[in-house]
Amino acid sequence: MNQLNSRVLAQDDAMMGHALALGRRGLGSTWPNPAVGCVITNQGRVVGRGWTQPGGRPHAEPMALAQAGERARGGTAYVSLEPCAHHGKTPPCADALIAAGVARVVVALGDPDPRVDGGGIARLRAAGIDVIEGLRASEAEADQIGFLSRIRLGRPMVTLKLANSFDGRIATASGESRWITGPAARHWVHGERACHDAVMVGGGTARADDPSLNVRGFGEIAQPLRLVACRRLDLPKDAALIRTARDIPVWVLHGADAAPDRVAELTDAGLRCIEAPLGRDGHLDPAGMLQALGAAGLTRIFCEGGGALAASLLQADLVDHLVGFTAGLALGAEGRPSLGPLGIAALSEAPRFTLIETRALGGDVLHRWKRQG
Amino acid sequence: MNQLNSRVLAQDDAMMGHALALGRRGLGSTWPNPAVGCVITNQGRVVGRGWTQPGGRPHAEPMALAQAGERARGGTAYVSLEPCAHHGKTPPCADALIAAGVARVVVALGDPDPRVDGGGIARLRAAGIDVIEGLRASEAEADQIGFLSRIRLGRPMVTLKLANSFDGRIATASGESRWITGPAARHWVHGERACHDAVMVGGGTARADDPSLNVRGFGEIAQPLRLVACRRLDLPKDAALIRTARDIPVWVLHGADAAPDRVAELTDAGLRCIEAPLGRDGHLDPAGMLQALGAAGLTRIFCEGGGALAASLLQADLVDHLVGFTAGLALGAEGRPSLGPLGIAALSEAPRFTLIETRALGGDVLHRWKRQG
Repeated sequence: MNQLNSRVLAQDDAMMGHALALGRRGLGSTWPNPAVGCVITNQGRVVGRGWTQPGGRPHAEPMALAQAGERARGGTAYVSLEPCAHHGKTPPCADALIAAGVARVVVALGDPDPRVDGGGIARLRAAGIDVIEGLRASEAEADQIGFLSRIRLGRPMVTLKLANSFDGRIATASGESRWITGPAARHWVHGERACHDAVMVGGGTARADDPSLNVRGFGEIAQPLRLVACRRLDLPKDAALIRTARDIPVWVLHGADAAPDRVAELTDAGLRCIEAPLGRDGHLDPAGMLQALGAAGLTRIFCEGGGALAASLLQADLVDHLVGFTAGLALGAEGRPSLGPLGIAALSEAPRFTLIETRALGGDVLHRWKRQG
Repeated sequence: MNQLNSRVLAQDDAMMGHALALGRRGLGSTWPNPAVGCVITNQGRVVGRGWTQPGGRPHAEPMALAQAGERARGGTAYVSLEPCAHHGKTPPCADALIAAGVARVVVALGDPDPRVDGGGIARLRAAGIDVIEGLRASEAEADQIGFLSRIRLGRPMVTLKLANSFDGRIATASGESRWITGPAARHWVHGERACHDAVMVGGGTARADDPSLNVRGFGEIAQPLRLVACRRLDLPKDAALIRTARDIPVWVLHGADAAPDRVAELTDAGLRCIEAPLGRDGHLDPAGMLQALGAAGLTRIFCEGGGALAASLLQADLVDHLVGFTAGLALGAEGRPSLGPLGIAALSEAPRFTLIETRALGGDVLHRWKRQG
């Protein structure tokens, strides 16, 4: 860190902040690639800006280099994640930076992808480029939580959303739930959906609410795909998700015991059926489901319930972020709970989260938490 | 308001703010009297400050006048509530202001007590004093909510506290609840107890948790009294509330069907037994209980559950303020709910509250609400 501090200028800090902000634009639309941002400066002026484009290509660096053109020569590149070193569908970004004549590269975070893993930085240094690592690394780590989770754990990160009455209910006893929270909270949720690769619900919620799970209110944007965990694939034929499966992809996780003709039927309708293992309790195993989704390339999942799926993810310690809304109404003990049973015997066994942020949003309370420890 | 605006100076606004803040010092300890603040200025300098003392006497004005002495003559008095006009245990404060030679009186809010109700202001004006009414009236109204509720509706105001896991549970299935929230939230609750005349729980909570319901962590202060709603007076003999009844008063609300020897026993132990009507459901009627407490002089009640009492108060639309804590842990559907059944058939029937404030407190989320409409 001493070395870092002595060589980092306020300008570097600000430019990396800019690169991080650019990188965040791609969250939700670049999977299986990370969403990276890049800023190129020359003599203190920004000459190029880039971020990973929808689908994961072009990468941030070629986009910024294209914008900079000849002005990249002798300049500094700020990248939120280590430039890639491997030939994939595009040539390595490290090589592109070298070819452009960049004199200095500032990197927020190393890329643990085994195809990179320090190789990008080594390549730059071997070419005589001055490389600084670790600037605003903790912010980059937070932004890359989904990509890092997939690389390190083989599964996407999971954000769980719970929108409750102040006594923790999501619907009346009869199932009426429109609306517990106000328009500002619901709009915020759509924005949050857009920052994830996929929006996920359980089969019970898909049957009961017939949701479309798309992002509304943000104009024309890259839509996250829709995911349903539905062991027996028992969705109604006229479900909104089935009717619109050719507009925005729908994946359905099912057990090995789903009827083969049902798999064929849904596949014909344009859905992708993914088999996942069953747990000891006979339900879809949450860890197995997430491994299957990680293998399919997903990095960020936004889970909106229902209570059984949410509880199974919490029980298996698979919830990374929690987004809660508390609305100013009471529904009473006969209302539907936001979470199913967790099988907790003692308070010390309860899954715990650390508060990131709370604020009023419309007439509701937004609170965001991250897994403790 | 035009008249008000043209005659009110920035100095008046600031001094009334000071008087309001002084008045708030008495909240919780002045019942059945309102907690009032008074500031006296002369030639722009504060010469006296007063607030209603514990037990409700002396009133704010005599305290401020005593401090001002001769300097009150020709000065301005700022009072958060109309000075009293009736001979109670003390002479009328309006007369004291007149006798002291105050030239101008600024009042935030009229006192609707039928013994005052404009009479104090009329008395001042009749003596040739320049009186301005309504400065920062809405703040005064908020501070006086308990006193106003007792005068207008015959009942104290009710603050309901709910401290939940983020899925709305207050304990594990086995009843373990220490602790859901952190030390900062618990300290805040003790401060809030101190601003109420009484801390109230239902009989079930008194039996299950054996709470002492006193204010801890604020040094030597006037303790609010303790209230239990316990139809049959079936508290264990060694309950903390019974053992400490001679230190801090304990009142028990019971039904007409409580055993007379049980009433005698608790009375002997130093508790005050107050009979309240039963509702159609055979439980203590919440409106009847609050009328009995209003008749006994209480203006501000802090209710800490349990779920049945909280639900009965909400169902009867008797909750004025709601204080919620959301803690960063999940307890699942088998955990104990914060509220009992409300019997709500449609979402439109749910009791609704308007958000006043939300913020992080320690690792928990504090949210405060007031009754809607």
